[in-house]
Amino acid sequence: MLISTSATVPASCRVLAAELPHHVGRQVTVQGWLHRRRVLKSVAFLILRDRSGLAQVVVAEPDVMSAVGDHPEETVLQVTGTVTANPQAPGGAEVTSPEVVALSGPAVAPPFDLYRPTVPATLPTVLDHAPVALRHPQLRAPHAISAASLAGFRTALDSLGFTEIHTPKVVASATESGANVFAIDWFGTRAYLAQSPQFFKQAMVGVFERVYEIGPVFRAEPHDTARHLAQYTSLDAELGFITDHRDVMAVLREVLAGMTAAVADRAGEACALLDVKLPEVPRQIPEIHFAEAQELLAEHTGEDPRGEPDLAPAHERWLSEWALREHGSEFLFVTGYPMVKRPFYTHPEPGRPEHSNSFDLLFRGLELVTGGQRLHRYEDYLAALAARGESPEPYAGYLAAFRHGMPPHGGFAIGLERWTTRLTEADNIRRATLFPRDLHRLTP
Amino acid sequence: MLISTSATVPASCRVLAAELPHHVGRQVTVQGWLHRRRVLKSVAFLILRDRSGLAQVVVAEPDVMSAVGDHPEETVLQVTGTVTANPQAPGGAEVTSPEVVALSGPAVAPPFDLYRPTVPATLPTVLDHAPVALRHPQLRAPHAISAASLAGFRTALDSLGFTEIHTPKVVASATESGANVFAIDWFGTRAYLAQSPQFFKQAMVGVFERVYEIGPVFRAEPHDTARHLAQYTSLDAELGFITDHRDVMAVLREVLAGMTAAVADRAGEACALLDVKLPEVPRQIPEIHFAEAQELLAEHTGEDPRGEPDLAPAHERWLSEWALREHGSEFLFVTGYPMVKRPFYTHPEPGRPEHSNSFDLLFRGLELVTGGQRLHRYEDYLAALAARGESPEPYAGYLAAFRHGMPPHGGFAIGLERWTTRLTEADNIRRATLFPRDLHRLTP
Repeated sequence: MLISTSATVPASCRVLAAELPHHVGRQVTVQGWLHRRRVLKSVAFLILRDRSGLAQVVVAEPDVMSAVGDHPEETVLQVTGTVTANPQAPGGAEVTSPEVVALSGPAVAPPFDLYRPTVPATLPTVLDHAPVALRHPQLRAPHAISAASLAGFRTALDSLGFTEIHTPKVVASATESGANVFAIDWFGTRAYLAQSPQFFKQAMVGVFERVYEIGPVFRAEPHDTARHLAQYTSLDAELGFITDHRDVMAVLREVLAGMTAAVADRAGEACALLDVKLPEVPRQIPEIHFAEAQELLAEHTGEDPRGEPDLAPAHERWLSEWALREHGSEFLFVTGYPMVKRPFYTHPEPGRPEHSNSFDLLFRGLELVTGGQRLHRYEDYLAALAARGESPEPYAGYLAAFRHGMPPHGGFAIGLERWTTRLTEADNIRRATLFPRDLHRLTP
Repeated sequence: MLISTSATVPASCRVLAAELPHHVGRQVTVQGWLHRRRVLKSVAFLILRDRSGLAQVVVAEPDVMSAVGDHPEETVLQVTGTVTANPQAPGGAEVTSPEVVALSGPAVAPPFDLYRPTVPATLPTVLDHAPVALRHPQLRAPHAISAASLAGFRTALDSLGFTEIHTPKVVASATESGANVFAIDWFGTRAYLAQSPQFFKQAMVGVFERVYEIGPVFRAEPHDTARHLAQYTSLDAELGFITDHRDVMAVLREVLAGMTAAVADRAGEACALLDVKLPEVPRQIPEIHFAEAQELLAEHTGEDPRGEPDLAPAHERWLSEWALREHGSEFLFVTGYPMVKRPFYTHPEPGRPEHSNSFDLLFRGLELVTGGQRLHRYEDYLAALAARGESPEPYAGYLAAFRHGMPPHGGFAIGLERWTTRLTEADNIRRATLFPRDLHRLTP
């Protein structure tokens, strides 16, 4: 009996599709999904998909062929056969003389053909059917890049003496900014989903000096755009005993280099599939002060943004192009943003207090990271809140750390999905999000 | 001027306390918190605390001594001086002839003395003042152990071909179990905080085969005990193409070995501080079937638990002791739990369908991990839900993956805080949680 519906071969004997070329001449077992099936007159070709890639199985035996005809695409198969060299097969080897076992079958066909090289479906269809749509190699690839990026983020920070933390996602008051919070019923009390781990990571500088957190943050922004998510994964870092924001920028440079290297190292195939061009992270990322940037824009663009408290998207693009042209860098730090556009915990620029010791990192024309030096003295916090007309009361928990002595410190946050979207040049951030949550989407 | 309030020495020249012995005879800068200050007649001893440990600074210069007298404990200091060998100093070296700069000062004294070897405060005091209390080396230590454990978890799974994922924490329906969910206002719609990433990680088996997620989960359990949290950090893994739950247990064994090794490697000092005895993870963790375990208990304990669907805490303790006595292992797998006590997605035991292909891992007398094989066929899910009298409607998103062909798979979840609590033998899980959230606690 060559076809059966129960698995008996232990999984430990399994060989992955990508490993087949190393097993030519041997009997092996491969397992995966039936990606594509072509049944010809006297031979059938099965393309099996597993986590490593695709494997070709050649069926010439009549009884196996007829049984294989019953299995639609996405059937989960276990195939035992001989590895045979064939330059035309993926990886240069295929499985011949196979015994084929169906481990389970699909109840319905996928909403679109998963085996086509590019995705023959609109984004809403992809998102509605994420559990099966993400199996398409092109739709899976951004998530392999995200996973690799996370590994690079951690490796870089671990080597710099950072400690990983996990902090509450439910808070008593909306602290980062008053609006755009999700309210929650917490045992009968009103609470909120955390918009960032900002205050916790700052407090933890007092404990571990250098900390990072990778976790979800929640923004109740009622924007239905290609770049807004209501939940995203924030890569947060914070470090103490800095001189100013430049020490934070130096750490961020190492992080970006680590993330890029990890993507090249761990997600090469995903990059190839999406034709990703990884950026070079210069030893020293060029930087320009906000005021200088405005001068430059006034001089060269025919517009005069001086006096504006922020950069327009078109100006960010222009500055990115300028950095590439003048410094050969796809990254550009813009420093010294006006205090009026920065949160209350931002450290002002010494000698120029309308500017701040903060920065944005532009990457390929868009802002990718925001960071800077924070206030560290208790009295400075009280003054900053008073200047904004805010009472220190709701911030009591946050301010506690600063009442007990805190070093000069700063940090940054990278949105994982935004990073992956930029790397893959995707048209919508939802393509870099496993199961997006937004204004309209709570499922799947 | 030897004392000033502004920092001028760049942080890059900084040496950590633990590195001092390598710098004897050299001029260095150390930075940290004034942990303890002893001012004698003609000499003052400053103990400086940084992320690496403690450093002793000896002040003999009269003008520095008098200035140092103004700085209370927890002042943030920068000290530049000469490293001098002294067998009585921590690490065998101290800083002499120092220049001392205060980077910032505390506004109030800590709620208890941070410099005492053991914590002179009750747990509520510690939790109320977490931002400063966690600076105490003994209170900080569990969190260093947690961070190291996470690194070990990931290293083990990365080497086994797992992919890291991040999934939604807000869901449209309460799926894991009907009760104990937090409701949330999602742009005017009622939604819930996710109790586990169970359904997402299973769906992702269809995409990456082997996945893990480290993230927050939320349980609205109204229990005010030493082991309940309303938010905890769940370490979830799920893998496809298994034969049965034993393949999951084999992966879990590697994970536990990786976590233990990483704690030894990366958190040795924290372990020493808390007198942690790390367990040995046997090559093969002993296992016993639930039915056999009940036989054993009936035979040896004078009680007869046969017929009960679960193990009583006393019985878990007895079995743990038995495993240690008979097999020399602090870990014991109990397999084959009755289906009635397991979630609907649990795979039954072939040939004994009232039992399941599931397991609990007991560690030092308590359940540490739950896991098992899941159903993988769509029709089996429909039957399982029907048998429980549940409609498949609310599970449509979850079931989508199974309609499209899924391999035999299974997984497990480890509660990070529970793991650290057991390792450190803490009296309350809140000691292993940075900023606990529970029935009564939403701050700090």
